[in-house]
Amino acid sequence: MSSGKQFTLHGGVTGPNPLKVAVVLEELGLEYDVVNINIRAGEQKNPEYLKLNPNGRVPTLVDHSNGDFTIWESDAILLYLVERYDKEHKLSVADADEKFKLIQWLFFQASGQGPYFGQAVWFMRYHHERLPSAVERYHKEILRVLGVLETVLSKQEWLVGGKLTVADISFITYVLARAVWPERKHGTHRRCSWNQMAIGWGLEGVEGGDVQKEFPNVYKWHQKLVSRPIVRKFLDIQAEAFRKLSESQAK
Amino acid sequence: MSSGKQFTLHGGVTGPNPLKVAVVLEELGLEYDVVNINIRAGEQKNPEYLKLNPNGRVPTLVDHSNGDFTIWESDAILLYLVERYDKEHKLSVADADEKFKLIQWLFFQASGQGPYFGQAVWFMRYHHERLPSAVERYHKEILRVLGVLETVLSKQEWLVGGKLTVADISFITYVLARAVWPERKHGTHRRCSWNQMAIGWGLEGVEGGDVQKEFPNVYKWHQKLVSRPIVRKFLDIQAEAFRKLSESQAK
Repeated sequence: MSSGKQFTLHGGVTGPNPLKVAVVLEELGLEYDVVNINIRAGEQKNPEYLKLNPNGRVPTLVDHSNGDFTIWESDAILLYLVERYDKEHKLSVADADEKFKLIQWLFFQASGQGPYFGQAVWFMRYHHERLPSAVERYHKEILRVLGVLETVLSKQEWLVGGKLTVADISFITYVLARAVWPERKHGTHRRCSWNQMAIGWGLEGVEGGDVQKEFPNVYKWHQKLVSRPIVRKFLDIQAEAFRKLSESQAK
Repeated sequence: MSSGKQFTLHGGVTGPNPLKVAVVLEELGLEYDVVNINIRAGEQKNPEYLKLNPNGRVPTLVDHSNGDFTIWESDAILLYLVERYDKEHKLSVADADEKFKLIQWLFFQASGQGPYFGQAVWFMRYHHERLPSAVERYHKEILRVLGVLETVLSKQEWLVGGKLTVADISFITYVLARAVWPERKHGTHRRCSWNQMAIGWGLEGVEGGDVQKEFPNVYKWHQKLVSRPIVRKFLDIQAEAFRKLSESQAK
């Protein structure tokens, strides 16, 4: 925080939600420091962090250029960043109505895609007992969400305004964060290349879950997103962090 | 739609998400027609409806005064309504930074409260097999969310800006919609009074789930919200609809 950079991003960039904030900060050319929050060690529940974010989740962004204004919920942060610092609409839209379409898609990601993806991963990897019908429920919901995106992206290249926006970016980090998985409680440990989107979405081995084949327009959209240099840079950082974690766990 | 009213709200007001849009429309004095979408009959997947909302969920709002502008995701709709039609800030805030705090709380409701509440209800009532550890997972998450709200509301009366806003309203209809429950697959059918908030949040019989005792400031906040005349009106409509549904199912 004493570095004089404009922002402090609390939450390590290996997590899906802090990562998307970092991508947007860099795409907009904004300077920031990262304060890592070790989720495995429960640091997101430390009293000091809870003062910034009573929800005890990551990320939280502090804007030192705006009186240390503090905001959490990743998609709310993306809106804050583009509304204040994207006057040229590099990742946003100028039209007032289109702006609400952008907000609509952010809410779809936050309420429809993110939580259901998260539940699939939870029951696949972390729950203390195997519950196949719970896993199946969330796989079906992920396929449903992919179907909604496919319907839209078969008619247009991007979600809003005919251009890349934070609405698109809000979806990508779920792919990235899961591309190299350090542990699998209920299955075989396996390293996956970053472009295996089905794996990124928790759909390995699921019937109808071959994203490239079943949802070709979603796949193309995803490939365009993850081929951006800034996104690829974070992918490499993430893969390296997971590699180290995996090694340290194997020792 | 031919009535000449400004808006058409697709989605019956007995569902939690359409209901909160209806509450905000009325609190702002805006005129609207309702097109009921029968979820039990799967009408949200009809081709005609999917043209309005490819996500196949309710609600969807059409603003006839703005070229039939169409928007879905209930919390995105609330933002649209206050930004365009709440110039006096009856349910919103004037300050630019406070606006992003409001957006932050809407995302917390949409991503943190709504989906987890929904999963608890799913596994309690609709899943084809009993999975007690899944129910327990979501009960714990609901208690966690109530804890976050309690921390904040123990220091301030409302979530944002020292006044009632759509951020507060976004939480209430989960309570309302579940207050009179027409069926319980995995338990005893029971009618519940509308102010039994624990029941509204899917916490009946859960240890630590006595909202009035364990989360007194959340309880007070909730009581203020549901005592508003417009909210009470919808409560009565909802209770009546559930009563009729319950009767027709009993026949």
